[in-house]
Amino acid sequence: MNYLKTVVIVLFCALSSVNMYAQTHPSLMLTQAKLAEVRLGSQNSALLKSSYQTIKKDADLALKQPINVPVPKDGGGGYTHEQHKRNYTTMLNCATVYQITNDEKYANYVKDILLAYASQYEKWPVHPKRKDDKDGGRIFWQSLNDFVWQVYTIQAYDLVYNAISKKDRATIEQHLFMPILKFFTVDRVEIFDQIHNHGTWNLAAVGMTAYVLNKPDYVQMALKGSKKDGKSGFLAQIDQLFSPDGYYMEGPYYQRYALLPFVMLAKAINNYQPELNIFEYRNKLLSKAIHTALQLTYTNKAFFPINDAIKDKTYESVELVYGLDIAYADIESEADLLDIAQKQGRVIVSDAGLKVSKAIDEGKIEPFKYKSLWVKDGAKGDEGGLGILRYGPNTDQQLVLMKAASQGMGHGHFDRLNLLFYDNGEEIFPDYGSARFLNIDTKRGGGYLPENNTWAKQTVAHNTLVVDQVSHFKANVKAGDAKHPDLLFFSDKPGLQVVSAKEDNAYADTKLIRTSALIKIEGIDKPILVDVFRASSANTHQFDLPFWYKGQLVNSSFKVDAQRNNLQALGNNYGYQHLWFNAQNQLDEKGGFVSILNNKRFYTTTFVAENPLQVKLVSIGANDPEMNLVDGKAFILSQPNAKSQTFVSITETHGGTDPINETVASATQNIKDLKIISSDDQKAVVSFKMKNQQYQYSIDYNKKKVSLTPALSEGEGATTKPNN
Amino acid sequence: MNYLKTVVIVLFCALSSVNMYAQTHPSLMLTQAKLAEVRLGSQNSALLKSSYQTIKKDADLALKQPINVPVPKDGGGGYTHEQHKRNYTTMLNCATVYQITNDEKYANYVKDILLAYASQYEKWPVHPKRKDDKDGGRIFWQSLNDFVWQVYTIQAYDLVYNAISKKDRATIEQHLFMPILKFFTVDRVEIFDQIHNHGTWNLAAVGMTAYVLNKPDYVQMALKGSKKDGKSGFLAQIDQLFSPDGYYMEGPYYQRYALLPFVMLAKAINNYQPELNIFEYRNKLLSKAIHTALQLTYTNKAFFPINDAIKDKTYESVELVYGLDIAYADIESEADLLDIAQKQGRVIVSDAGLKVSKAIDEGKIEPFKYKSLWVKDGAKGDEGGLGILRYGPNTDQQLVLMKAASQGMGHGHFDRLNLLFYDNGEEIFPDYGSARFLNIDTKRGGGYLPENNTWAKQTVAHNTLVVDQVSHFKANVKAGDAKHPDLLFFSDKPGLQVVSAKEDNAYADTKLIRTSALIKIEGIDKPILVDVFRASSANTHQFDLPFWYKGQLVNSSFKVDAQRNNLQALGNNYGYQHLWFNAQNQLDEKGGFVSILNNKRFYTTTFVAENPLQVKLVSIGANDPEMNLVDGKAFILSQPNAKSQTFVSITETHGGTDPINETVASATQNIKDLKIISSDDQKAVVSFKMKNQQYQYSIDYNKKKVSLTPALSEGEGATTKPNN
Repeated sequence: MNYLKTVVIVLFCALSSVNMYAQTHPSLMLTQAKLAEVRLGSQNSALLKSSYQTIKKDADLALKQPINVPVPKDGGGGYTHEQHKRNYTTMLNCATVYQITNDEKYANYVKDILLAYASQYEKWPVHPKRKDDKDGGRIFWQSLNDFVWQVYTIQAYDLVYNAISKKDRATIEQHLFMPILKFFTVDRVEIFDQIHNHGTWNLAAVGMTAYVLNKPDYVQMALKGSKKDGKSGFLAQIDQLFSPDGYYMEGPYYQRYALLPFVMLAKAINNYQPELNIFEYRNKLLSKAIHTALQLTYTNKAFFPINDAIKDKTYESVELVYGLDIAYADIESEADLLDIAQKQGRVIVSDAGLKVSKAIDEGKIEPFKYKSLWVKDGAKGDEGGLGILRYGPNTDQQLVLMKAASQGMGHGHFDRLNLLFYDNGEEIFPDYGSARFLNIDTKRGGGYLPENNTWAKQTVAHNTLVVDQVSHFKANVKAGDAKHPDLLFFSDKPGLQVVSAKEDNAYADTKLIRTSALIKIEGIDKPILVDVFRASSANTHQFDLPFWYKGQLVNSSFKVDAQRNNLQALGNNYGYQHLWFNAQNQLDEKGGFVSILNNKRFYTTTFVAENPLQVKLVSIGANDPEMNLVDGKAFILSQPNAKSQTFVSITETHGGTDPINETVASATQNIKDLKIISSDDQKAVVSFKMKNQQYQYSIDYNKKKVSLTPALSEGEGATTKPNN
Repeated sequence: MNYLKTVVIVLFCALSSVNMYAQTHPSLMLTQAKLAEVRLGSQNSALLKSSYQTIKKDADLALKQPINVPVPKDGGGGYTHEQHKRNYTTMLNCATVYQITNDEKYANYVKDILLAYASQYEKWPVHPKRKDDKDGGRIFWQSLNDFVWQVYTIQAYDLVYNAISKKDRATIEQHLFMPILKFFTVDRVEIFDQIHNHGTWNLAAVGMTAYVLNKPDYVQMALKGSKKDGKSGFLAQIDQLFSPDGYYMEGPYYQRYALLPFVMLAKAINNYQPELNIFEYRNKLLSKAIHTALQLTYTNKAFFPINDAIKDKTYESVELVYGLDIAYADIESEADLLDIAQKQGRVIVSDAGLKVSKAIDEGKIEPFKYKSLWVKDGAKGDEGGLGILRYGPNTDQQLVLMKAASQGMGHGHFDRLNLLFYDNGEEIFPDYGSARFLNIDTKRGGGYLPENNTWAKQTVAHNTLVVDQVSHFKANVKAGDAKHPDLLFFSDKPGLQVVSAKEDNAYADTKLIRTSALIKIEGIDKPILVDVFRASSANTHQFDLPFWYKGQLVNSSFKVDAQRNNLQALGNNYGYQHLWFNAQNQLDEKGGFVSILNNKRFYTTTFVAENPLQVKLVSIGANDPEMNLVDGKAFILSQPNAKSQTFVSITETHGGTDPINETVASATQNIKDLKIISSDDQKAVVSFKMKNQQYQYSIDYNKKKVSLTPALSEGEGATTKPNN
């Protein structure tokens, strides 16, 4: 019997014995044992102090307001929705301040809110604004928000437990928490047992509540599913929702969101049942998930906005504050996490927050170690993944992301082999993210807009190849979910980082291979991004490779002659209907270049294909009657009629403008004479000149390597190591 | 004989006596007397130290490069252009480092560059890329750049003077500086005598060079014009180019640029001829000009981008660093200037820079005092001006700018009574600025683009009224220059700030009056912007009032139904040809609202007119074949067919989104029931409701006041004071 099996069996034995749990309060984020230290730290440890003061200010403001527990009525962003969200925050803040100050007025306020809920909750039907009978909450339009509400509220209750009379506790537990447990585990049992982030939130709420209320039976359900058979529940979720690298298939935006209930319930388990060693489970999976979430950000703090994502979401969000504090305090105290904590600007007023804050006081902080890495997707790690190439210091980092991950269910986009490029703290080749104004009621209730399906998910909205103006998998989620791309090879060798991946199933008769490299050539300030996209087909197709760019087009090898009037949509379907067709340029040559000015730096993409190309200039906005879409511009390299086709591009970062001093440096690119020497399904060989030096760059798809001649000087790396 | 006359006569007498000047070197920004202190400060005074280190680093880098003085060939942004610019910076940096370090290698490098110029200069014809024979430089495509080059180069020469042999000095003076003086004062005498910023640069170069070379005759010319009759020259420029408030008619972008030669030559005059009391001249005009330049910025540091302006130009630019240091050190040591110096992040390595840096070390810094004020335009102060209303702390300031200034010659825009609105560090209702990619050679040589005339200058590109789709003065500069708007009244009373101005001449038969108020109502977080625009005509016209906005339209009183395909330009001329006509909305009502989300805050403009309106939604980009224009969006309140017409709008700042915490606050506006009770050429009375309180707002154009009932509570002000 191997080690893992032993662990699982021991765990199951431990889980199966119905214990009563220690009934010390508080015992979740803030524990009785650490209370004195946290109180002191709230006075004298900088980050904890300021975090506490923020909470205290909010709590004091709240205390001046009358208690307001309205009958649920509005959808996301609406009045009752926001008020109920505010209530859980208020309760947690006041309860925390109560523990720090010992001032009972804060505890009483929490008690009064809880009693107000307890007096009404049982009367509330499923929410009138529910979209679906299986999914409606009672406090909110979707039960997910109810789960979240309870995850926070039970923490508040735990904190004020000892300050509430036995009689009031009985009222709150019988008329609020027990009905909630029943609602979550019976009425919403399908969600409870679903391997999905809504399920995680549900069982985290149930598990934490069960520990605090000392209901071992519900703890069992939370850990092992409603039938307690281990087919669902917390451990099954850890097993199935994350890849071995801690990647969550829906992408970083949802990874962040999904992470919090995992982290919170794990912390509760660790406090109540330390013998379960939950943080060790599946080779420290939760720790990996937290670290991977941080690695899925750029130096502007924002998560990579792949799939359905709100673009301004950063690691400052509360989920990562909890995650980071607990990762540092309870799993492994890595000094570079403190850099992130500092940039988050707050800690949780808790045992873990105290430890982070004190470590910063003690000067243990180190710059966060951003990595170049291949992040595997799939429960077994064999369903593609994300390739991340980075270069440069945290203050001026260049980053290439290739998305070769699985579909990610309903929130996934049809963007196999999509490429994002960042530099200088900015998006250079961005991802649109989702089409949504989160919580803005006037924009379709704050939910996903119709254009999320018709535009944001479609292939042409991304920096990847579109065949015949049809999205990957014809934009069918089921078809996309059934297949995944595959990594060919990956190297993080500093001077010549590469990720190469293939997608065989997005189109019936066309196979896609993309190989993107970040190459640092000596004497050139910044690395160049060399991208070789091969589409292989026995039949004739139209191949479109869009480059969505931020900034202003300032130069090109062709004369731009934009449509003066009567602007038309580029197509009718798969997102093309949302593109204004600003300019068509039929090149006489097989290649050319486009230069962009973005945040005072120049970026020139020099490109070449096997036949003369068209370059289409497009912008977002056609067929958008409600003006739901935000602005965006792209140049599309287009081959209207070819069988197999290779697009090679080199994007060079050069020079810049200084508007303060009114100077311009290196406005023209160094790359010249980019040529495809040969390209087939086995190999690609291209040549180019840079500062009078001729280079040859080769990809061998069979040997899984790239090479550059002349080789880079020592320390800059000329060969690649194959992945695994 | 009054005081001013006495001063002028004394000055003229002083100027008329041909003195020889003290021949101590250096004597310009850095003087022999202060050298020891500046050397010390470069080691131990924080801001001076870091400023010096920046220069030192540049100088050391430069020393590693071979000297490069190419034959002038390229236009703005091109290779030889940028190299010659780099040369003067290099010379000044190296010369400064020489004085601080006493290391002769720096002085020798400057000497060698100067000798390289001296060996070629006389052979260079007028620049091949000149646009105009009267205007070409010899080093640069326009002589203006030659003047600037000399202003910096003569400073470098003054700093290394003592380190150069007499023989080399003779070569440099005879073959470079004397020919330059001749070129500037003879070949370019028209510019030299022109009351215009090109003239100022020319005479500053001549004046400073003449002091350093001890050529009193040229000093006389610099001060009193080529004929030494006082009809042109420095004093005439001070008299005529600035208003009594120190405003420069071309607008802030050019004010900044024009300021530097004034400040530098004044400093030279003050050092060589302190008896002239140049900083006292015209009631401390130069000091006012520096302060006014700073007041013409928002808290994002950027100058108001009215007229031809590069939008990312800030007070960090070198002109304001010189200006600020000298204002603080040589004119009046106001503590709040140090705040700006701190934000500039540098001082000039000079006597003045030392004083600023030390004052910061000593903790004298105070927050900069941004003011609400009326800035008079015109040499006599009677040609309109700029109304600036501000509210809130420097960290979150609201600002309204009404432009009721004179045309400002060729760089002026046809935007009488234009309104800009800022909040939260952002432009809310922006100005397009100029259509230009400064120094980017591929964009028409980096100069003004054709669209600067066809778009950026046109009225519809601004937030002001357009009659019959024709620009003010039919976009004729001469006609615009002949007339100016007039201030009606201004008040900076904190709770009820108002600026009211009129323009009678922009259209033949329509008079325009605009009254904009920033009103802080108790219980409402932010002031409201109440804007009443009256167009008065006996004839029937189309009236268009555009609101250019930044951000995303998230709500409106009307259902937006944007053009799905076949997008058309809105018009044929006066900028309308550049507008894509995205949506037409014929309202059944006389009013409505539009809500914008900008940097996580909501802005709702509630509007009403005397008849049912159309709201046109437009975006920039039609008839722009080279894609020279940058993105922009507006809603235009349009009255297709009316005689006199009043547009009333209230723009309310409310609530916001918090993407980190995924919350939304106050997404809907408080203003309700906005109505025009009466409006004619004498008075306007409007009413509105805010949080269940009914308000009545009245403007009396004759009595020059506004009033609000119920009145604001004490300290918030309900009446206005008329201006002057």
